[in-house]
Amino acid sequence: MKVVCLSGGVGGAKLAAGLHDVLAPGELTVVGNVGDDVEVLGLHVSPDLDSILYALAGLNDEERGWGRAGETWRTLESARDWGGEGWFLLGDLDLGLHLVRTQALGSGEPLSVVTRRLATAAGVASAIVPATDDRLRTHVTTPAGTFSFQEWFVGRRHEDEVDAVSFAGADEASPAPGVLDAIHVADAIVLAPSNPYVSIGPILAVEPIREALAARKAPCVAVSPLIGGRAVKGPLDRMLTRMAGGTTPAHVADRYPGLIDALVVDVADAPAEAAVPLVVTETLMTERTHARRLAERVLGAAT
Amino acid sequence: MKVVCLSGGVGGAKLAAGLHDVLAPGELTVVGNVGDDVEVLGLHVSPDLDSILYALAGLNDEERGWGRAGETWRTLESARDWGGEGWFLLGDLDLGLHLVRTQALGSGEPLSVVTRRLATAAGVASAIVPATDDRLRTHVTTPAGTFSFQEWFVGRRHEDEVDAVSFAGADEASPAPGVLDAIHVADAIVLAPSNPYVSIGPILAVEPIREALAARKAPCVAVSPLIGGRAVKGPLDRMLTRMAGGTTPAHVADRYPGLIDALVVDVADAPAEAAVPLVVTETLMTERTHARRLAERVLGAAT
Repeated sequence: MKVVCLSGGVGGAKLAAGLHDVLAPGELTVVGNVGDDVEVLGLHVSPDLDSILYALAGLNDEERGWGRAGETWRTLESARDWGGEGWFLLGDLDLGLHLVRTQALGSGEPLSVVTRRLATAAGVASAIVPATDDRLRTHVTTPAGTFSFQEWFVGRRHEDEVDAVSFAGADEASPAPGVLDAIHVADAIVLAPSNPYVSIGPILAVEPIREALAARKAPCVAVSPLIGGRAVKGPLDRMLTRMAGGTTPAHVADRYPGLIDALVVDVADAPAEAAVPLVVTETLMTERTHARRLAERVLGAAT
Repeated sequence: MKVVCLSGGVGGAKLAAGLHDVLAPGELTVVGNVGDDVEVLGLHVSPDLDSILYALAGLNDEERGWGRAGETWRTLESARDWGGEGWFLLGDLDLGLHLVRTQALGSGEPLSVVTRRLATAAGVASAIVPATDDRLRTHVTTPAGTFSFQEWFVGRRHEDEVDAVSFAGADEASPAPGVLDAIHVADAIVLAPSNPYVSIGPILAVEPIREALAARKAPCVAVSPLIGGRAVKGPLDRMLTRMAGGTTPAHVADRYPGLIDALVVDVADAPAEAAVPLVVTETLMTERTHARRLAERVLGAAT
């Protein structure tokens, strides 16, 4: 069974890891958001690709919720002492990956090729593919001005309300090699429980990816990132309220017009009605076993 | 009393630290070798400038003899796990500096400006200046072929005998801002106990620096890096034997024809004769107090 999963950061990565666990090696392709990629201390950081890689490889820190387990911060502290920027937290273990990727990109290797090498180095049999090898950056427009994603999310702690989201470079961006093929051959397509605006949105902003989804032959199931109308983490509930008028399953489903065949929602959000059939289950993934159970449920809904 | 000291790596940095200690703030300018600069994991590493900075700031590891005290290796180990190059040892604290410098160089800042900022960040009042802001790289020709300095020194553990040393880029290299001024106003010039071929040689390969030394008004004193005809560390004794025919004080002094007015040698190398007067003292610097004592002796010989 071939499955493709579009994922943003931590929440999406959890479900991706669940799918990785319940599928056979090579059956899963995870397409990762690159709209929140950022250059820090001269290094190219792909936070969402890394969240996916760390989760699938079992290297992620489940307690902190992001980054690597057993992380330390010596290099960043030293960089700060030397006058370097310290606003974006990069751990020592994490930095090892950023160094290798930045060096590879600097030598001309496409992001998708580096990402494949990294997954191989970690022994991950699922495919992890960036939405695009081209430069695509998410910007948010707020009452305080327009900011790059990380400037708003980390630098300003996503405190500003969001009026609009845009994707610089999306018009010129091509899908990375493997993305369209994975969608075409998939038996099921999953939109992970990630923020539709700033996590899944940048992937769908690559027009050929959106078109491939719209023309899909396989069922596409989205998983709502809300529980009881609230974001498990992050600013999605505030964004939905302000930009869409509410946080019900219908408001989530309407982010994906014509692109999904069902929406998986938490028991706390049922009963409800939406433009597509709802599948009700427990969606909170505090442990990897929960992620596997949700993955099974999602795959069940897609067949 | 204005003093300028030309220095290579660890041994030279020890004397530079001694001079730093015994001179008043702002009196010392250390001109550092950049011929063994190297790109590792995409980062610009200036090992000799760093040895000088760490020694003057008291951050150096005296026991290991190089790098920073209290160093750890988490980031490098992670980079290796991700398939990154691991031949050149970069500690976590060390990497913090390399990240800041590489980012600054990437944004167009000259090496001398970055170096000044780093020294300021460490509270070092002495000036540390690279010989040149231009790209200058030391290569060694051996029976096994020609190698870049670090490829030979670290990668091949400097086991190959050296037949010749060359400096790529030296013909086009200009002295970094401050170098010639420091030499012109100096009351004393010191050539640190560094390898004349691969540590002081690359500095003198910048022709205007050599010319300024040749036309000096202040006395110039070199300190022999040999003790009893043997290198304290490194391959200098083998290099001198092969390329100059011996390891006496005369062989060392002859590396600096017309450039020095005296040579400080260890008691183990006396009595001896050379083209310049010899000053005999204990030159081994196992502790910083030794470095201060040698610095006093060297300054005494230069006045």
